[in-house]
Amino acid sequence: MSELIVWTYDWVPQGPRGFVRDLRLRWACEEAGLSYSVRTVPFTDRGADHLAHQPFGQVPFLSDGELEIFESGAGLLHLARKSEKLMPRDPVGEAQTLQWTVAALNSIEMVSVPWWFLEVTGAADNHLSGWLASRLDHMENVLKEREWLAADRFTVADLLMADVLRVARVRSFGDRTATEAYVRRVTERPSFKKAHADQMAHFATADQLRS
Amino acid sequence: MSELIVWTYDWVPQGPRGFVRDLRLRWACEEAGLSYSVRTVPFTDRGADHLAHQPFGQVPFLSDGELEIFESGAGLLHLARKSEKLMPRDPVGEAQTLQWTVAALNSIEMVSVPWWFLEVTGAADNHLSGWLASRLDHMENVLKEREWLAADRFTVADLLMADVLRVARVRSFGDRTATEAYVRRVTERPSFKKAHADQMAHFATADQLRS
Repeated sequence: MSELIVWTYDWVPQGPRGFVRDLRLRWACEEAGLSYSVRTVPFTDRGADHLAHQPFGQVPFLSDGELEIFESGAGLLHLARKSEKLMPRDPVGEAQTLQWTVAALNSIEMVSVPWWFLEVTGAADNHLSGWLASRLDHMENVLKEREWLAADRFTVADLLMADVLRVARVRSFGDRTATEAYVRRVTERPSFKKAHADQMAHFATADQLRS
Repeated sequence: MSELIVWTYDWVPQGPRGFVRDLRLRWACEEAGLSYSVRTVPFTDRGADHLAHQPFGQVPFLSDGELEIFESGAGLLHLARKSEKLMPRDPVGEAQTLQWTVAALNSIEMVSVPWWFLEVTGAADNHLSGWLASRLDHMENVLKEREWLAADRFTVADLLMADVLRVARVRSFGDRTATEAYVRRVTERPSFKKAHADQMAHFATADQLRS
């Protein structure tokens, strides 16, 4: 099997640590038992070299032998093709995994990330709050009825949705107990804990190298 | 081959006509030469019946025999697995198609749709304008260098990105000539024109049935 490399920044400030999206790819590799290494690009200087790998100046991107792929959601679906642990192989299970992966990206994160952006940039009145609350209400109704999003088992769709929801959740959008339990259930998995700890250690080492 | 059904609303107001996302699935079927029919769910009454098919109360969703899939982006990737006209079959071409499909959903639309939402709900100062301008600048730089996003040919990634950009573009975000030419090039394809005309005719017929 070709070599998998997860690319992330060499350093980031404290705020985003534990949330940089290389975590998603580390986590998926851990779940699937795929061996991988982590390499870095400079956080402070994102020139033509970086843009040739990631045209929006972000991380992560994934190398898989000769192939390279950016967008964490695309990287996850690419990894899911390598391991049944991330996505079932029957057409219905695969379609359910695909639809919920895209739902995390385009129905939840499309509202939660801009909502968060408005929060941190200090808009007086966050006009996306009602829309986000409505989307989270729909998710709560879904998660009241089932343990996992697709095919009655853990898939890469749960990995991504839980990661998306744990960001939206920290700002506390009411008492959505099924969503809370879901995020807890998914992020208590050993592979999440390892990926999270590894990312925190990666950036802590970067601090030591700087000081 | 199993029967493909694109589900959309029975009627919508004038504003969204030509933009309802069933257009993306119609367009992909036309490009691929896949036969399909169109069926409807009520626009005005979106109860438990609708939510069982699309848990956020939206359209479209796609039936493919026994299988059903919501999220237009997921539907497009599902259709792309059926036809090489939508996605090349070599691993690099497939990875490029996947990454640019997700980029349309999560790097452009994640900013452009909330930006548009703030525009229409009349926020005094649209705090997402700078972010959207930056994302569109990155796209302009990409589109200056190439005709198609993936594998040097038209793919489903172009279909989706052009659809996402034509919405962002109508509000005019400066003079991005490569992006303008790209959107024109992709939307001049006969399959887009047919899908667009068919959607407009579908809702026009709905008006006649109402009057």
